[in-house]
Amino acid sequence: MMDVALFGAGRIGKIHAGNLVRQPGVRLKYVIDVNADAARALATQHTAAVADADAVMRDPAVRAVVIASSTDTHAELILRAAEAGKAIFCEKPVDLDLARARTCAEAVHRAGVTCLIGFQRRYDPTFNAVRTRIDAGEIGTPEMLVVTSRDPGAPPVEYIKVSGGIFKDMLIHDFDIFRWILGDEARTVYATGSCLTDPAIEAAGDIDATSVTIRTRQGRLAQINTIRRAAYGYDQRFEVIGSKGMLQAGNHRPTEVTASTALAVGTDLPEHFFLERYRVAYANEMAHFFAALAGGTAVRTSIDDGVKALELADAAMRSWREQRIVEL
Amino acid sequence: MMDVALFGAGRIGKIHAGNLVRQPGVRLKYVIDVNADAARALATQHTAAVADADAVMRDPAVRAVVIASSTDTHAELILRAAEAGKAIFCEKPVDLDLARARTCAEAVHRAGVTCLIGFQRRYDPTFNAVRTRIDAGEIGTPEMLVVTSRDPGAPPVEYIKVSGGIFKDMLIHDFDIFRWILGDEARTVYATGSCLTDPAIEAAGDIDATSVTIRTRQGRLAQINTIRRAAYGYDQRFEVIGSKGMLQAGNHRPTEVTASTALAVGTDLPEHFFLERYRVAYANEMAHFFAALAGGTAVRTSIDDGVKALELADAAMRSWREQRIVEL
Amino acid sequence: MMDVALFGAGRIGKIHAGNLVRQPGVRLKYVIDVNADAARALATQHTAAVADADAVMRDPAVRAVVIASSTDTHAELILRAAEAGKAIFCEKPVDLDLARARTCAEAVHRAGVTCLIGFQRRYDPTFNAVRTRIDAGEIGTPEMLVVTSRDPGAPPVEYIKVSGGIFKDMLIHDFDIFRWILGDEARTVYATGSCLTDPAIEAAGDIDATSVTIRTRQGRLAQINTIRRAAYGYDQRFEVIGSKGMLQAGNHRPTEVTASTALAVGTDLPEHFFLERYRVAYANEMAHFFAALAGGTAVRTSIDDGVKALELADAAMRSWREQRIVEL
Amino acid sequence: MMDVALFGAGRIGKIHAGNLVRQPGVRLKYVIDVNADAARALATQHTAAVADADAVMRDPAVRAVVIASSTDTHAELILRAAEAGKAIFCEKPVDLDLARARTCAEAVHRAGVTCLIGFQRRYDPTFNAVRTRIDAGEIGTPEMLVVTSRDPGAPPVEYIKVSGGIFKDMLIHDFDIFRWILGDEARTVYATGSCLTDPAIEAAGDIDATSVTIRTRQGRLAQINTIRRAAYGYDQRFEVIGSKGMLQAGNHRPTEVTASTALAVGTDLPEHFFLERYRVAYANEMAHFFAALAGGTAVRTSIDDGVKALELADAAMRSWREQRIVEL
Repeated sequence: MMDVALFGAGRIGKIHAGNLVRQPGVRLKYVIDVNADAARALATQHTAAVADADAVMRDPAVRAVVIASSTDTHAELILRAAEAGKAIFCEKPVDLDLARARTCAEAVHRAGVTCLIGFQRRYDPTFNAVRTRIDAGEIGTPEMLVVTSRDPGAPPVEYIKVSGGIFKDMLIHDFDIFRWILGDEARTVYATGSCLTDPAIEAAGDIDATSVTIRTRQGRLAQINTIRRAAYGYDQRFEVIGSKGMLQAGNHRPTEVTASTALAVGTDLPEHFFLERYRVAYANEMAHFFAALAGGTAVRTSIDDGVKALELADAAMRSWREQRIVEL
Repeated sequence: MMDVALFGAGRIGKIHAGNLVRQPGVRLKYVIDVNADAARALATQHTAAVADADAVMRDPAVRAVVIASSTDTHAELILRAAEAGKAIFCEKPVDLDLARARTCAEAVHRAGVTCLIGFQRRYDPTFNAVRTRIDAGEIGTPEMLVVTSRDPGAPPVEYIKVSGGIFKDMLIHDFDIFRWILGDEARTVYATGSCLTDPAIEAAGDIDATSVTIRTRQGRLAQINTIRRAAYGYDQRFEVIGSKGMLQAGNHRPTEVTASTALAVGTDLPEHFFLERYRVAYANEMAHFFAALAGGTAVRTSIDDGVKALELADAAMRSWREQRIVEL
Repeated sequence: MMDVALFGAGRIGKIHAGNLVRQPGVRLKYVIDVNADAARALATQHTAAVADADAVMRDPAVRAVVIASSTDTHAELILRAAEAGKAIFCEKPVDLDLARARTCAEAVHRAGVTCLIGFQRRYDPTFNAVRTRIDAGEIGTPEMLVVTSRDPGAPPVEYIKVSGGIFKDMLIHDFDIFRWILGDEARTVYATGSCLTDPAIEAAGDIDATSVTIRTRQGRLAQINTIRRAAYGYDQRFEVIGSKGMLQAGNHRPTEVTASTALAVGTDLPEHFFLERYRVAYANEMAHFFAALAGGTAVRTSIDDGVKALELADAAMRSWREQRIVEL
Repeated sequence: MMDVALFGAGRIGKIHAGNLVRQPGVRLKYVIDVNADAARALATQHTAAVADADAVMRDPAVRAVVIASSTDTHAELILRAAEAGKAIFCEKPVDLDLARARTCAEAVHRAGVTCLIGFQRRYDPTFNAVRTRIDAGEIGTPEMLVVTSRDPGAPPVEYIKVSGGIFKDMLIHDFDIFRWILGDEARTVYATGSCLTDPAIEAAGDIDATSVTIRTRQGRLAQINTIRRAAYGYDQRFEVIGSKGMLQAGNHRPTEVTASTALAVGTDLPEHFFLERYRVAYANEMAHFFAALAGGTAVRTSIDDGVKALELADAAMRSWREQRIVEL
């Protein structure tokens, strides 16, 4: 039985807890959260104990930690867990500060511990099938990528203020998809954007709609379009064009009902938001983490992937702010 | 230049006139209609003359006639045109009376003239592609057929009274599709139905919704479902299942616009009705007729096909009325 | 904690076990199977004990039984469980013999126990959404139903021989869907069929392709088309036409990937078979059972529904064998 | 009867001739082409005469000219026709040189003649429906636009050399769509690109894949992605996101057949290329031209639209060559 500690008993922490306890040979031992009630409730539900970080790091029975607490706690917890020799499953991003993220990566490598960063989209059946089929040669050499990434609504401005901005908060996933699908690194990044949906976001120094263009070392092209508020819901698609064809990853819907009335032929809106859309991805991600631990194999989304995505987010932010093309 | 006479200057007559004058080497010489104004207007539009049937049949320059007048005139015009040695393009059905339709077929065969019955669906790009792909072996041996055939609304009861009933008026097309797609003949026919949309139709001795099942000589199965009033429009689909797969013929839409709003993801309703849906089919059908005439080749929809479809309509009507399975 | 016993440790038994142990306040106490190894393996996985039926029926702590053993054991287990006052979750069909199924229903009613028959399709998100939207009036009065029900391949002939035939084995689900969606009862049933895929099925006295037509008391029409082997997989669709529109329940796919190559634009085949297609339905069904137990509310799929579907299967079988329309 | 002269008897000239002769009250009087055989063949087909530009400009009966000759002849013919007071229908682009295009626009305005530039996509039923529905407020205020514009294969390098480059040859249409759909003008343009499909294109100083980002005066965002060779065919889509939803314009297919085999569920590739895809658009465009002439109303695609699209193409080319963001 492998004992695990979970940091964070919020929305995403609960998802991870539910998936964690279904892994064979894995036991949730501790739940840690600054909100004592939340920690207690989640711990009780899964017959775990409430603890603090010190106790967790000291307990040699704890072989792995799952970090689902707020972003500003990620780096310190990674550093401590790495030092304590524990395997790490950490929600994205590693940190909002690139230098600090790199420090974490170095610590992880030095300690030689397994560290998975929660880019759950790589574990989604649809997204993963695209990658598998590219690898199988179905569309020849990938040449262009168009990513559509739209949220059903903007979060509260209070959240936006501490989010690191749209590039680090929202597009960080898309930058990871870009690297994973094209299998190439950026040479130039151009980002522009606007605040189209809520003036309060602009007042907070952020934008809510962006267009990002990446040209890779091999001359491939990627476009990302993002908006914080799509009236029709959570829109997560991408398409990759290769020399022999195109693969498109489409939205998932709650049901496969089609309604034909006097007005239109209608189907469901996309799955409401990330918790619904990536439900299977979160489960696969957790299973992958423990399978990698058991097998001593590499994880699909390493801390280096976390750093690389952050580099792109950083470059995009500079491109937008300084209104120039940024070279990497 | 081949001279042609057109009987009928109504809705479908106008369609045929428009297609006719686009055929290279073909000239519309006469238009005949009991409605003199309609005949004159259509004749003027295409620089043709108004005439009566006697003049047409006597004129040796008239090589072909297009019969788009009311159903009760078809048989006599076919008989006269065949006797006069003219090629015949006749709207479905040959006649509402099976014996009379057979007499027409015999006359056509005796005269050795080309005779195309207007089962325009066989000339539709989508429907025809299904048949071509079946012939190419894409789904192996065809085994089952499901035909959906729904109108956007019932015609006036006055029309229904002289229509020959739903089986001869509406399903005649579906019976032809059945024979064409499965390439097999019916052994048993079972039809049931109801009057669901308008009590006036029932009062007129007809029904507006039917379910027909055909079992073929080779044991294949076909289902046809029909309703006079589909709130969402003209719904014309079929699917054929074979040993290696399935081919589905779907509806055509006016545009390829998809709208995503807070309520649903919506696409266009199907093309409004048969004039829109089969616009290309009508054009192809006319081109096929003159190509067959020019090349001396057989037409795709012969008068025998017209008789066979009527036999099925007759059998279905008896099955429904007598509430029994009819053997053919 | 509510103790439950599970009869049957085969394919479907394992599914039910997995869903059962996730219900809050529910414990799997016993697993019973004629295959001792299978019983032991499943019991061990869920920390349950292996037992026999006598022990289960005697144990007052066992509040509910889940019957997922072979069809020929259903009736006796239902009778014993009812007599012992235990709630019953039983896989379809109640029994292959209609009289025996009715005896079971009477016993259940006499004992006043909750009894859910496993028509899992009613718990499927897509199918259930259709019913909910009909109830909400979205398509007005339902008038016609077309059910497509095709398996990816025929089972071994040894199974077919004890299956009760295609109508009781395969269409039993479709008969239940018919009653549930149209909310009406059959007045006449007509069934025809053929053996198209495997002569061994015919030799066993069964068929592998059917067409069934039902006319209801209110004159509504339903068509069911079924085949044991669809080369492209498990095809489970239906569409219901009402006075104001149509609702269609489509297939589910493993992923939402679309591939465009020089040959075609392609999407995934449907989910492979019922275990994949109805994974969520099975989970919802089990949750519904225990929620009904907890709340003392009626189950969505009662033993009377089980009997009614069997009546239809029986009528269809007679219609096919005697080549006549059967009145109910 | 209005007499019209057609310059250019090539592929697109034939399309325009076919549409022209179907306009009521319009007669094709002259065909002009440097290829005498082509001119004669097309003239004969439509009972027109072969002529040269001088004769056309001198003939007062010629009320309108259709310019479908090679791009390098457009400007001179526009200038001469304007001076001669003839209405002008001219294929895009006005000219490859922006200054020269502006001179043409001034001449047209001075002469006060009707001048339609052949941005046929604005006359496509699907594209036009999007614009109409935006105008009707269906998606609120348009905020973002994503245009996908891919050809089935690159033209011969000899053509590329005189084409003006990918921005003026291919994206000129997309720049027009951008202005038309967003109803806004560009403030900044960023273009990058690569030569991914054929090194000979790079040797000719051009690229075959581009990503263009436009930020408008009102802060709206547009992305265009283009490639000269999409293995699956001609891919012409766009989607516009507004405050209340999204409208997507999808590809048209030759048929609505869906094939389900053991491998995949497949539909048709898009219509092969622009002559097929925009067949209806070309017909609508010609009808619109003569309707505008008859009614004295403005054309949907004026010479100013031609100049504006060229300004964008010019800016994009500079952005790409100089690797910088270009302000307008």
